[in-house]
Amino acid sequence: MRLALIGAGRIGKVHAQAIDRHPKVTLAAVADYHAAAAEALAAQYGAQAVSVDAIFADDGIDAVLIASSTPTHADYLEQAARAGKAILCEKPIALDLARTRDALQVLAAHPVTCALGFNRRHDPQFAALKRALDEDRIGQLETLSIISRDPSPPPAEYVGASGGLFRDMTIHDFDMARWLLDESITHVHAEGSCLIDPAIGEAGDVDTAMVTLTTASGRLCHISNSRRACYGYDQRIEAFGSAGMLQAQNESETRLRFTGEPGQVEEKPKWFFLERYAEAYSLEIGDFVDAWKQGRAPMAGAQDGLEALRLAEAAERSLKEGRRIAIDDIH
Amino acid sequence: MRLALIGAGRIGKVHAQAIDRHPKVTLAAVADYHAAAAEALAAQYGAQAVSVDAIFADDGIDAVLIASSTPTHADYLEQAARAGKAILCEKPIALDLARTRDALQVLAAHPVTCALGFNRRHDPQFAALKRALDEDRIGQLETLSIISRDPSPPPAEYVGASGGLFRDMTIHDFDMARWLLDESITHVHAEGSCLIDPAIGEAGDVDTAMVTLTTASGRLCHISNSRRACYGYDQRIEAFGSAGMLQAQNESETRLRFTGEPGQVEEKPKWFFLERYAEAYSLEIGDFVDAWKQGRAPMAGAQDGLEALRLAEAAERSLKEGRRIAIDDIH
Amino acid sequence: MRLALIGAGRIGKVHAQAIDRHPKVTLAAVADYHAAAAEALAAQYGAQAVSVDAIFADDGIDAVLIASSTPTHADYLEQAARAGKAILCEKPIALDLARTRDALQVLAAHPVTCALGFNRRHDPQFAALKRALDEDRIGQLETLSIISRDPSPPPAEYVGASGGLFRDMTIHDFDMARWLLDESITHVHAEGSCLIDPAIGEAGDVDTAMVTLTTASGRLCHISNSRRACYGYDQRIEAFGSAGMLQAQNESETRLRFTGEPGQVEEKPKWFFLERYAEAYSLEIGDFVDAWKQGRAPMAGAQDGLEALRLAEAAERSLKEGRRIAIDDIH
Amino acid sequence: MRLALIGAGRIGKVHAQAIDRHPKVTLAAVADYHAAAAEALAAQYGAQAVSVDAIFADDGIDAVLIASSTPTHADYLEQAARAGKAILCEKPIALDLARTRDALQVLAAHPVTCALGFNRRHDPQFAALKRALDEDRIGQLETLSIISRDPSPPPAEYVGASGGLFRDMTIHDFDMARWLLDESITHVHAEGSCLIDPAIGEAGDVDTAMVTLTTASGRLCHISNSRRACYGYDQRIEAFGSAGMLQAQNESETRLRFTGEPGQVEEKPKWFFLERYAEAYSLEIGDFVDAWKQGRAPMAGAQDGLEALRLAEAAERSLKEGRRIAIDDIH
Repeated sequence: MRLALIGAGRIGKVHAQAIDRHPKVTLAAVADYHAAAAEALAAQYGAQAVSVDAIFADDGIDAVLIASSTPTHADYLEQAARAGKAILCEKPIALDLARTRDALQVLAAHPVTCALGFNRRHDPQFAALKRALDEDRIGQLETLSIISRDPSPPPAEYVGASGGLFRDMTIHDFDMARWLLDESITHVHAEGSCLIDPAIGEAGDVDTAMVTLTTASGRLCHISNSRRACYGYDQRIEAFGSAGMLQAQNESETRLRFTGEPGQVEEKPKWFFLERYAEAYSLEIGDFVDAWKQGRAPMAGAQDGLEALRLAEAAERSLKEGRRIAIDDIH
Repeated sequence: MRLALIGAGRIGKVHAQAIDRHPKVTLAAVADYHAAAAEALAAQYGAQAVSVDAIFADDGIDAVLIASSTPTHADYLEQAARAGKAILCEKPIALDLARTRDALQVLAAHPVTCALGFNRRHDPQFAALKRALDEDRIGQLETLSIISRDPSPPPAEYVGASGGLFRDMTIHDFDMARWLLDESITHVHAEGSCLIDPAIGEAGDVDTAMVTLTTASGRLCHISNSRRACYGYDQRIEAFGSAGMLQAQNESETRLRFTGEPGQVEEKPKWFFLERYAEAYSLEIGDFVDAWKQGRAPMAGAQDGLEALRLAEAAERSLKEGRRIAIDDIH
Repeated sequence: MRLALIGAGRIGKVHAQAIDRHPKVTLAAVADYHAAAAEALAAQYGAQAVSVDAIFADDGIDAVLIASSTPTHADYLEQAARAGKAILCEKPIALDLARTRDALQVLAAHPVTCALGFNRRHDPQFAALKRALDEDRIGQLETLSIISRDPSPPPAEYVGASGGLFRDMTIHDFDMARWLLDESITHVHAEGSCLIDPAIGEAGDVDTAMVTLTTASGRLCHISNSRRACYGYDQRIEAFGSAGMLQAQNESETRLRFTGEPGQVEEKPKWFFLERYAEAYSLEIGDFVDAWKQGRAPMAGAQDGLEALRLAEAAERSLKEGRRIAIDDIH
Repeated sequence: MRLALIGAGRIGKVHAQAIDRHPKVTLAAVADYHAAAAEALAAQYGAQAVSVDAIFADDGIDAVLIASSTPTHADYLEQAARAGKAILCEKPIALDLARTRDALQVLAAHPVTCALGFNRRHDPQFAALKRALDEDRIGQLETLSIISRDPSPPPAEYVGASGGLFRDMTIHDFDMARWLLDESITHVHAEGSCLIDPAIGEAGDVDTAMVTLTTASGRLCHISNSRRACYGYDQRIEAFGSAGMLQAQNESETRLRFTGEPGQVEEKPKWFFLERYAEAYSLEIGDFVDAWKQGRAPMAGAQDGLEALRLAEAAERSLKEGRRIAIDDIH
């Protein structure tokens, strides 16, 4: 697969490295709004720095990875679909449902392999948990609890453009919940507060939230979010069922333990998504390539992006109205 | 302190043993609706089996421990207060707010030492967590997560008389939340399902629930309940704050670890409250005696029972109405 | 059982409390070289302070617990045996083999229930490990590793009278090794150093040691000792076999975990033997009473004391001569 | 760096992958006794399959990685040194001291960067432990305990040619001990048994061993080896000192925990060295390249190979003679 990367920022670099390590993908081209960034990254991996238009026009390009800024995702996704390229698009497709739906229609008219960057589905811990659920290790799944905390809050200006906590951060947890619950979510209730940075509150957002999801069969799911965990990236999931419980615990760089005056001390969790999900990004590329080759659906696709966004919308409305929201009311 | 025990059932026996081990308390008398039960327990500890009336009439009795069936609590509590006895009453005082308020008025008119049996406040794990919070170990507390699962569901007939999950089981978690949050709780949202035993649903109750509490300053608290955890009594608390996180983990009988074909295996958590809270029951007696001697308030008192019951009422109403309930609306 | 306690020092007090809590034992009398100590302890538990001779002469006394200073053990043990009392004797019977053998001969001539205070056999962790071995949980046991470290070194003057590290401290580990290996130990090799307190070295002893035991069938056992572990009492055992591994881990007061700047922190191990083996002392009394009642051998008896002492002698000789010592050469 | 790989077997393949991932090393050539193996591996990474002689004659080759069979190591190492190539040689240089010393003399005469494949020094866990020791995290190091168990025993014919347990397996632990103790080892005592496979015993070797090392200042080190741990590769180190203890624990593929009927279950340790030390092999290549570029000594060099071999010889002699051996007597 000859792949072109659109976006040479932080997440673009992560993908470039994962692409480079994959034995069956060649990073052919890099495009970025900042030409210099594209050139630097292209040079590092022996690719060409080109314009976005050149990518869509190039018949030698099989696939594009869209890692540019969020407002450009939907446009590039549509252009790529029309150009017949396989697509790996960073989440979200767009911050609103209408724009996302439009993009899905274009995809329906131009069916190409289209994967969405819900990287956590590829995390070995969570994948092992999913596998164990599928193998009925805990019998009937009854409740799910997702803890997801970032190490430090983003600047308030980022928050303003992010679409808010639920669309920007919880969206990953909504996708995880959908994937693990494996059943229609019918209701969403959300509570949120601004406890960390008043500037986030002034920008109209919350930095701490708890969301409860209910499924058609009555399963319950709890999501706990914070924009700041001083000890690192807190990414844990607990699944509880009729025959037991599964817990995906945090990872640390090493398992070294010190016992002394302060107690029995192990390392903090890995710092942030680049550290924790390094392997997930590699596996995501692998899944994308395999899906393209085998003509099968990737682990997460555009529809998953739409559904997660509906949950985010519902959470936002719940927070505003102080009541649980039926998903059927979110269009 | 010469103490009389009312109620010689399962929990009465636990208290009798704890009383026996306390160096400064004598179990003077035992009363029970079933005279034979009172006699057997009295004989075991060298006490006298008597009637309830005899207890209240006996000037040689300093204190009563009310561990009889729930519907009798409020009456005995009022009688004891009027007789000037110190009181340790099993929770709840009553299943409804009005009856509870009446009892509190009697207590106000007859001020005696009155402790309520929220035994978990005495659990060394949770007490250590509370102490760490008070010492600002995690800076500002922001979110709290309480997991509380029983090993096996009660029979449906018990459920019918129990007042429902929130009043019967979550009540302990509400008290724990109040104690740890140490601030007014303003709103309650509850979701619940019947996933374990259909007979519980037919009795009009749920067996699986998630509750979210919000405080005046915006702190959030999650409670997760299940009537059945096949692996034992799951009693954990996680407190998250600006400077870190505290987790009170489950206890097992031993720390023996087996590593072999199935993996690295440690023991299941202790089976139920008798095992897990054995030490808490002893410490509860100790606190009661000390409070009585020193004329100070016990760790948990009658007012705490009322406030926890208000939260249970709010949760029940939230579940019914599908919206968050303001505590101020619960009278 | 009416029991008399000889020795009202630190370990005597531990036993007095355990006796008091046992429902079927009455602490009838206490004797001590310091009459005031005996009186204080006797008063605390409603016993009588008496002379040692009075104990042996009193037909109302069923059993004696010898917790006086080491040099008196053998004499009191012999007197008790001759007086037909059941005996629970703190280890060691004596610091040398000849005196120990003499005492065993008296016991042979006057057969009474005689338990030796190898309290660790009663520790729930180690007892669970033993049970798992007996149930072939790890198949054939092949190697054993015992880590035994005290929190802080004794004063050098204590060391001088203690018989040395191997007789005073490792003796417990030798007994544990014998109990768990459940097979003749044929060879002992020991290395030792004085790394903690030069005064211990000047007193002719070591404060840090490693001992290797070999059994008749070729099993290997490692013992690691230190007189000082700044983080508390380090008492762990690892058993390795053909079907897996068992590890008895340290215990802490609580399982509270703090995660923050310094990492993920759990409490230090319990501080010393009074904390770690509190339950073991209770169970030891229980086993002694049951053995006496049922006419069976107690968990650890006088012969076990002799055999552990032979291993200590062998270790001492090995350290001196720089070679492995055959146990058959230790008489 | 243009590097040639000698040996395309199991460990050669591991190195080839690590080389491929290193941004500054090109795998230029592969040689193997089995030409087909060399060709296959060369093809996989775009290298050339050549003869060993061609490597030493090629001026375009900067370095060789010797991963061929043990008996060839010393010869190739000498040829490489004479040809002025940088060398990364799998351990051991040779199975006997004389041959090893000869090779070191050639290296002395032809000084090139020469790294020895003690891969464990590069393991992130052990490297973190070493760093913590260097930072005095536990004060003065007093004792060290190394547990090193393979998942399954090699065939007896391998054992025959391996030089025996101490030279083949414990050699890694001897190197680790030397590296962490950072001080002259003066004495070695070894015990060993054949408990796993009688064929190993018939081949004149042991499959289970315990070794004790003593340093000049009196530090003690314990090594525990087994040729078979049914649960996987058991690779742990415990360092104990005046201010605490450090434990490098085993790694598992994930941190997923299941709690259910059998208890609280985490995954087994990684299966064998390919899994556990995958990252170490990458870091080893990195250190080799950096050492070559910077003209500094690599993490482990030829002299380290000689010293570890002396300890193995001493252990073998100790096992035979039943006494501790002074290292000064091993020439």
